[in-house]
Amino acid sequence: MLVLGVDPGLTRCGYCCVEERGGVQSALAAGVVRTSPSDAPPDRLAEIQKEVSSLIEELRPNAVAVERLIFGANARTAIRVAQAAGVVMAEAAKAGVMVREFPPSEIKLAVCGYGRADKQQVTRMVQSLLGLTQPLRPPDVSDAAAVALCYLAHSRSTPAAAR
Amino acid sequence: MLVLGVDPGLTRCGYCCVEERGGVQSALAAGVVRTSPSDAPPDRLAEIQKEVSSLIEELRPNAVAVERLIFGANARTAIRVAQAAGVVMAEAAKAGVMVREFPPSEIKLAVCGYGRADKQQVTRMVQSLLGLTQPLRPPDVSDAAAVALCYLAHSRSTPAAAR
Repeated sequence: MLVLGVDPGLTRCGYCCVEERGGVQSALAAGVVRTSPSDAPPDRLAEIQKEVSSLIEELRPNAVAVERLIFGANARTAIRVAQAAGVVMAEAAKAGVMVREFPPSEIKLAVCGYGRADKQQVTRMVQSLLGLTQPLRPPDVSDAAAVALCYLAHSRSTPAAAR
Repeated sequence: MLVLGVDPGLTRCGYCCVEERGGVQSALAAGVVRTSPSDAPPDRLAEIQKEVSSLIEELRPNAVAVERLIFGANARTAIRVAQAAGVVMAEAAKAGVMVREFPPSEIKLAVCGYGRADKQQVTRMVQSLLGLTQPLRPPDVSDAAAVALCYLAHSRSTPAAAR
C-alpha cells in the first residue's frame, strides 16, 4: 500500500510517499513543492495543483493523507494554508484517489502515542518508523511523512479504509 | 470586458458573469454550483473544480473576481470556504485568466459606496446596477455579481488592471 502524505502550505507544501509492504514502512519519495511569495496567490495555487497532479500521476498512491488545519493565531496565513489544502484534496479526488484528512493531534497520537507530542518527537519517530539514518528535512517533509504514517496506522485498525 | 464573480463556498458556490460594454453592465450568466453535504469534502472540492473549469471554458471571462474570506465565528466553516476559494483561484489561474480577490468591505464600498452596507443594500444595488427587474437570488448569486461589479469599478479607476 502506497500513501502520499501532504503537509499543505502556500510557500512550502511538504510531501512524502510512504510504502507499507509486509509490515515494513519506507519512504519512496519525498520533497517540498515551493512557490514564490513574489507571485500572485492564484498562480501559486495553480503551481501547487500542477505539481500535485504530477506527483499523483508519477507515484500512483492508493491514498492521499492531508494534515488538517487547526486555527491558530495567524488567520491570514491559515486562509492560504486552507486554500492550498483545498487544491491538493480536489486534485487527488479528481484523480480518483482516496483522500483523508487528519488533525495534528491524531497524527501525533498515531506516530508518537501522545496527541500533544512536540515537533522533535514527531521528527524522531518518523525517522525511526521509516528506518532512516537521518531525520527527514525540512520539517514539512517529516510532517508529510507523519500524516502518511497516521493513515497507515488507521488503515491497519480499520482494514476497510485500506481498500 | 467580461468578469466572472464568484462567492466561494463548499455547499453553495455562487457565480455571476458580468459584461461591461459601452459603460453598461449586464449579467450574462448566473447560478450556483451546489455540492452535497453527504459527499466527502475532497470529492465536493473536485466537483467545484470541474464546474468552475467548465464555466471558464464556456464563458471565457477576461477576469475572475473572488470574495476574500474574512474570519468570523465559525472557523470550521471558514476552512471549507477557504478550500473552495483556493480551488476556484487555482483553476482560473491555470486557465490563464487574471484573478483578483476583494474583501467584503471593498465590495460593499464599490457597489454601495459604504463599506459596512448590509446584505439588502448590496442586493438592491446589484439589481439596480445590472438593470434587473428582480433581485438576483439566491444571495450567493447576488454576492457573486457584487464582486464582479467591484472588479469592474476597480478596473475603471486603474485601467491597467482591465488589460
